[in-house]
Amino acid sequence: MLQAKRVVLVTRPIGEPKASDFRIEECAVPTPGPGQVLLRTIWLSLDPYMRGRMSDGPSYAAPVPIGGVMEGGTVSEVIASSNPDLVKGDIVLWRAGWQTHALSDGKGLTKIDPGIAPISTAVGVLGMPGMTAYTGLVEIGKPRPGETVVVAAASGAVGSAVGQIAKIKGARAVGIAGGKDKCDYVKRELGFDDCLDHRDPDLASKLKDACWKGIDVYFENVGGAVFEAVFPLLNAFARVPVCGLIAHYNDTEAKPPKWAASMMRAVLTKRLTIRGFIVSDFAARQADFLRDMSGWVGEGRVKYKEFVTEGLDSAPAAFMGLLKGANFGKQLVRVGPDKV
Amino acid sequence: MLQAKRVVLVTRPIGEPKASDFRIEECAVPTPGPGQVLLRTIWLSLDPYMRGRMSDGPSYAAPVPIGGVMEGGTVSEVIASSNPDLVKGDIVLWRAGWQTHALSDGKGLTKIDPGIAPISTAVGVLGMPGMTAYTGLVEIGKPRPGETVVVAAASGAVGSAVGQIAKIKGARAVGIAGGKDKCDYVKRELGFDDCLDHRDPDLASKLKDACWKGIDVYFENVGGAVFEAVFPLLNAFARVPVCGLIAHYNDTEAKPPKWAASMMRAVLTKRLTIRGFIVSDFAARQADFLRDMSGWVGEGRVKYKEFVTEGLDSAPAAFMGLLKGANFGKQLVRVGPDKV
Repeated sequence: MLQAKRVVLVTRPIGEPKASDFRIEECAVPTPGPGQVLLRTIWLSLDPYMRGRMSDGPSYAAPVPIGGVMEGGTVSEVIASSNPDLVKGDIVLWRAGWQTHALSDGKGLTKIDPGIAPISTAVGVLGMPGMTAYTGLVEIGKPRPGETVVVAAASGAVGSAVGQIAKIKGARAVGIAGGKDKCDYVKRELGFDDCLDHRDPDLASKLKDACWKGIDVYFENVGGAVFEAVFPLLNAFARVPVCGLIAHYNDTEAKPPKWAASMMRAVLTKRLTIRGFIVSDFAARQADFLRDMSGWVGEGRVKYKEFVTEGLDSAPAAFMGLLKGANFGKQLVRVGPDKV
Repeated sequence: MLQAKRVVLVTRPIGEPKASDFRIEECAVPTPGPGQVLLRTIWLSLDPYMRGRMSDGPSYAAPVPIGGVMEGGTVSEVIASSNPDLVKGDIVLWRAGWQTHALSDGKGLTKIDPGIAPISTAVGVLGMPGMTAYTGLVEIGKPRPGETVVVAAASGAVGSAVGQIAKIKGARAVGIAGGKDKCDYVKRELGFDDCLDHRDPDLASKLKDACWKGIDVYFENVGGAVFEAVFPLLNAFARVPVCGLIAHYNDTEAKPPKWAASMMRAVLTKRLTIRGFIVSDFAARQADFLRDMSGWVGEGRVKYKEFVTEGLDSAPAAFMGLLKGANFGKQLVRVGPDKV
């Protein structure tokens, strides 16, 4: 009998997740019942939002239950089907979670055409991270030609797309990333106008030099020290789409309610717009996103980089690394081969 | 020779303005040159934004120079004219400032028809404060029927209009004001659904009771403790138009840049929109505002209250009181009689 594996959450992490917060379980591969399909995971996407699912504080989504399989977007192959809409060999996008095999009734699955792009892009540049970048930048950031757009985690899945779309829209793109290699990649390969190292003790003054006309759009996906460096440079009528705050996901205590009078004063005098969103708020833009982004990727105007760890067992450590910026590009777990 | 008076700024206030920051000067009434008109001030509007003009920190408008006449919106009568567009007896809206007489070349003056409404409304419910309420609520707050709108300084010029427009739009209106008399007025006269006293030590829990479905729109015109009570009650997709922060105008030091990670986390998970604005950003909506608001005032659907002090000499003390909430209604200074 085939063996399956899954990663379950055994304790809610306090601060940084650690290996003992997860357990890798072996189990029998399930058999599809009527209407069901059996899926074999090929790619598991790891994304910062998963840290939120490990905690039971208030958020926009329910937490993973203790003992439950960790959630996550996946690219899978149908290996057995009792569902008339799906046949063995179909490649599908789903949220099968951190496991090698899963049953599905076929609802919510999206078939992927492997002829269009590498199938891993369905959880990357052509999937949730790409659409987060696209909708947040286009719908909230609204960059105009000549404006300055700043994004952190600029070599990552979301940040890399943000800066490249900003360039397509005629804006200047300034990235922030961790270390020289990432910064070089962002400037040379992705074509950002500049990229600064967030570890640089002079980040604030270098950012000011790099954004000599101020900042019109700050795509917020990290928070913390980067936000502090960015905030004073925001121009009047700047827009701050907020899709993530990875610097704070491991915070163990809510800061006291010092509602930052000086921040609100800037919101007022500069007429800033600060707007939180999650990608599903813009589900109606999916077709526009896929049309534009597929085109840009096909033309080489949007590039992407993947950072792959091997085997489901690597998922917990890879996720812990993701929260620290150890990845260089879109974090993926190679759970199974493309073909067996 | 007629004597004129003016109030000039002699020192930039540190913290709360005090009487010695101003000087009342007497001077000769000027004579209009070619193309000019001589204006006699009838009403001077006092508004919280003026505190900003007394400081030289960064803001959206230049400060009043030391020795300069304090700025302010006025309703005046033309008492001498060498300008073909204006005749003696015309009543005009302008920014003549804190003085009894002023010369103007006629540019930027708006003639007021005294037959439509009391002329003081041109600096109140049908003027800048009314339009601030209207545009901020309609353009940014966008209240929907059944939603809950909260506004502080609810008996004041802006807050009273915000709540009444919210009711016209079918929303629930909850006000916050200083003291029982103001709260009673807001509920009984203005028709808000509820009004809480910001001095109540149980403000946070009472606000939670009053807003049992949470808060969908918080019209921010005060900041401080009210914002802290409001913030945890904001619903997903809440909107926070920010037009003022009167609680902070006397702050003497910028708070350290603790950018309120917990606040930003809420912006994200609740997909809040926090947007600063000043009324002139929506200048294009002036005709809509005047049409709607004149109609509502005429039908008695929007009421307003004026709080008048007598004589230009009263302006500094009245302004100091305004920052402390000593006024009850739109603060006006009666500088001269309607007719001489």
